[in-house]
Amino acid sequence: MAGQQPKIAIVGAGTIGLSFAALHLTKNPSCMVTIFDTRPDLQEYVQRHLPGYLLDADHDSCMRRLSFASKIEVAVGDAAIVQEQGPESLAFKVAVWPQIEQHAAEDALFWSSTSGIPASEQCRDMRDKSRLVVVHPYNPPHIMPLLEVVPSPKTSQTVVDRTLEYWRSLGRTPVVVKKECTGFVANRLAFALFREACSLVHQGVVSVQDVDEIVQASMGPRWTVAGPFKSYHAGGGEGGLNSFMDKIGGTVQGCWEASDEDVRKGNISVGKEWQAEICAQTDAAYGIVNTAERDNKTRKVLEAVKAETDH
Amino acid sequence: MAGQQPKIAIVGAGTIGLSFAALHLTKNPSCMVTIFDTRPDLQEYVQRHLPGYLLDADHDSCMRRLSFASKIEVAVGDAAIVQEQGPESLAFKVAVWPQIEQHAAEDALFWSSTSGIPASEQCRDMRDKSRLVVVHPYNPPHIMPLLEVVPSPKTSQTVVDRTLEYWRSLGRTPVVVKKECTGFVANRLAFALFREACSLVHQGVVSVQDVDEIVQASMGPRWTVAGPFKSYHAGGGEGGLNSFMDKIGGTVQGCWEASDEDVRKGNISVGKEWQAEICAQTDAAYGIVNTAERDNKTRKVLEAVKAETDH
Repeated sequence: MAGQQPKIAIVGAGTIGLSFAALHLTKNPSCMVTIFDTRPDLQEYVQRHLPGYLLDADHDSCMRRLSFASKIEVAVGDAAIVQEQGPESLAFKVAVWPQIEQHAAEDALFWSSTSGIPASEQCRDMRDKSRLVVVHPYNPPHIMPLLEVVPSPKTSQTVVDRTLEYWRSLGRTPVVVKKECTGFVANRLAFALFREACSLVHQGVVSVQDVDEIVQASMGPRWTVAGPFKSYHAGGGEGGLNSFMDKIGGTVQGCWEASDEDVRKGNISVGKEWQAEICAQTDAAYGIVNTAERDNKTRKVLEAVKAETDH
Repeated sequence: MAGQQPKIAIVGAGTIGLSFAALHLTKNPSCMVTIFDTRPDLQEYVQRHLPGYLLDADHDSCMRRLSFASKIEVAVGDAAIVQEQGPESLAFKVAVWPQIEQHAAEDALFWSSTSGIPASEQCRDMRDKSRLVVVHPYNPPHIMPLLEVVPSPKTSQTVVDRTLEYWRSLGRTPVVVKKECTGFVANRLAFALFREACSLVHQGVVSVQDVDEIVQASMGPRWTVAGPFKSYHAGGGEGGLNSFMDKIGGTVQGCWEASDEDVRKGNISVGKEWQAEICAQTDAAYGIVNTAERDNKTRKVLEAVKAETDH
């Protein structure tokens, strides 16, 4: 689909909307993007903020291929892809898809960027429920390669296949989540580690900054190159993950049980007393984070992996 | 201490011992290293395998600064640092430290590479229990920057400070773990995510390879640059982690509760039925992992971060 001058409608001009608009414009140099939002200063707002997402791409070319719509029917009318990142509310999403469906072309792809409202709920009032699929980014999508593609049981395989094809043609990493589940997968994994981190800080074993240093100097770089299964499989030598579990299983189980003792007693639930202390410690450690610097470093990391992989 | 031609005794010539020997020889170009092990072919074995750990360092210079000992008193007699990575058995470690203490210089540092036996147990029969500290690497230590420095309640602050100073002078990332706890911190964090990953694969949400792709395309690169607290703090914008928890706390709690339903019901414990299925899937996905390629990529990732940080 890349290279065919597809028109892409971005529904919602928040930070995710702008980041996705930038991703399409920079990685798919023939596409046209229309941004729909009801904010009255839409054009001025996007023209002021979008350039920050365009990185080292040709800004003029990107801005020339961009248009604006204050009515949703105008935005989606001739779009090949409609990508929604409106308010994270079931009522909004249930209401918006039938409108989009009414005005969009019959073969347009419908993607929701929701971080948690499954397609099977969003599609409730759609005529053709097979058209909708969740495409959940890891923020910000113009930097991070991952896209979790989460079909509902009604989503057609063709829609999933065309979605994967598009993102692969842009060099991204779409991964299909086979069953709709709470929080999808990336957040489930990250929040599990985050919970353990909160527990260890709460117990006074390490500080917030210690945790970050530990992760940045170990799992971060390791998992950039080889995910957890591949890493532990390698750790087992020729016998693989099986050997690893034979040798280290006792330690693994010991860690899980130690974790259960604190975390699973309910000490680490959202809103409990640990939270204020950890938020204060994080604020004292970092103030306001320079995300441009972080994103730039992340790009260099991804480029380094890619250079070695293509090598 | 780097630059003062310190002598370092490596007790145990397994893969961790060789990796640490290589780390000292390559990052501390004035040091001398003696490797002690009871294996009869020690010298031949080390000379065959060590070069694989020396990367692009001057191999001749490294090998010239290396010697061998088949008696522990010879190895530790004039060492400034004694670094132990013998068998992971409490009986071995309790027995070895008094021997080392008897023959080593009074101010020599004593480090154990154990992944789980705390210094407070290892030191049981030592005369001066304040000398011992755990220095737990993230494997392999000649590649990965992290060293978890875990004192016992009896370890002296001077020993901790000198340990940190040495590793910082070699450009590594030592982090003090303030309380001895099961598994220390890096493994606790990693195994928490691993458990969630096993649970999601077990439930058929994603495959082993999907998990690895997800992590490699999201948390891996992100956490290489900014650990979990700094990342979520940035995710909250100007309001930091507090804002993040206000906005996303419901999703976080939802994920934790969904995790509890499966993981904490005890479905994911070591040795249960999920394990064989996941080991088989991992083996089918990866066969034998090329760790040299993985380590080379990891170095490039770490160099990319360092170049941007020094920039």
